[in-house]
Amino acid sequence: MAIKVYGVAMSSNVVRVIAALNEKGLDYELVPVNLAAGEHKKPEFLALNPFGQIPAFEDGDVKIFESRAISRYVATAYKSTGDDLLPAKTPAEVAALECWLEVEPQHISEPISKVLFELQIKPLLSMTTDPATVEAESEKLGKVLDVYEARLSESKYLAGDAFTLADLNLMPYVYNLSLSSKAELMTSRPHFKKWWDEVSARPAWQKTAASIKL
Amino acid sequence: MAIKVYGVAMSSNVVRVIAALNEKGLDYELVPVNLAAGEHKKPEFLALNPFGQIPAFEDGDVKIFESRAISRYVATAYKSTGDDLLPAKTPAEVAALECWLEVEPQHISEPISKVLFELQIKPLLSMTTDPATVEAESEKLGKVLDVYEARLSESKYLAGDAFTLADLNLMPYVYNLSLSSKAELMTSRPHFKKWWDEVSARPAWQKTAASIKL
Repeated sequence: MAIKVYGVAMSSNVVRVIAALNEKGLDYELVPVNLAAGEHKKPEFLALNPFGQIPAFEDGDVKIFESRAISRYVATAYKSTGDDLLPAKTPAEVAALECWLEVEPQHISEPISKVLFELQIKPLLSMTTDPATVEAESEKLGKVLDVYEARLSESKYLAGDAFTLADLNLMPYVYNLSLSSKAELMTSRPHFKKWWDEVSARPAWQKTAASIKL
Repeated sequence: MAIKVYGVAMSSNVVRVIAALNEKGLDYELVPVNLAAGEHKKPEFLALNPFGQIPAFEDGDVKIFESRAISRYVATAYKSTGDDLLPAKTPAEVAALECWLEVEPQHISEPISKVLFELQIKPLLSMTTDPATVEAESEKLGKVLDVYEARLSESKYLAGDAFTLADLNLMPYVYNLSLSSKAELMTSRPHFKKWWDEVSARPAWQKTAASIKL
């Protein structure tokens, strides 16, 4: 049975799932969810995700929600298809991979989401961007990016020498930041910029980026 | 070399790590970090965790931070020691485990932390509990607990028939809630209460609970 991704390709959380599927070369159907009409709060959708948020995901009989859980599911259930996105074997490799998988949701997700909401989402919703929020969140984001910059000055990818799910999970946010008026937050940090140039050149990401609707 | 956990056993994030170590029967040294003196923002600690938060963790030469990354590291690096906390094998098992590992940080962590901060941490810091915040966050927490209740009405543990890291990662918060004036949020939900009675009776958790300093 086919893989179905429920959501819209504007959400970074949906794009994270699509990016994982493209890395694995898997076909999928993107099933649109009409958020404006409240489709995500109706019983049919709540059966897929009781929290009423996109994305939700089906792989035949398997149902799962939460974007990072889905991308890890894809990386695990299709481990031997395409590049292994969870290649850690030694304790040190496991530690680096698990640590950098967690830094994304725990540290960068909130400030980068707030900056992007102000700069990219509010204009789409005919809301007014608040410059003070942009500056305050950009300052927080900059401090987190300093930690990433230090890490990428000593490691080619976040978890080590190989591209992993830790890189992939972060990419949807960074792509949006690269298109925003705050792109200098990443381009001004040379190791981060070099990492982005590298990971965004991957054929799978090129395919993902082409499907993003901003 | 010995395992070292840097932090204080009052933090749910530190307790999460201790709970994983106790499940595996591993010895460790709890290295106190004087938060009041700002030790967590000094260079020696920032070398362990660049975000300056507890816990940080060392296992011989392996360094790692972020509590959920550490608990997963312990479950992975010591997979064959004690019970396997990541036993998922089939795609459906992997989906359930990854999904319920993510629900904790993404959905319950914020409202339960805010309730516990008001009820347990503020009094310790000679701050005044705000009843309006307690009520607002308790309402949010109740809605999340409804989703857990539905899950536990159809599954003995969060990820299926076996106790896993998805259960363990949630336990420090639930333990604190059980000691608070909002304990009825959990005791009023029968499947959740049955789950808690089951998981908190585990010998490893009894050992963990005995080490918690509230």
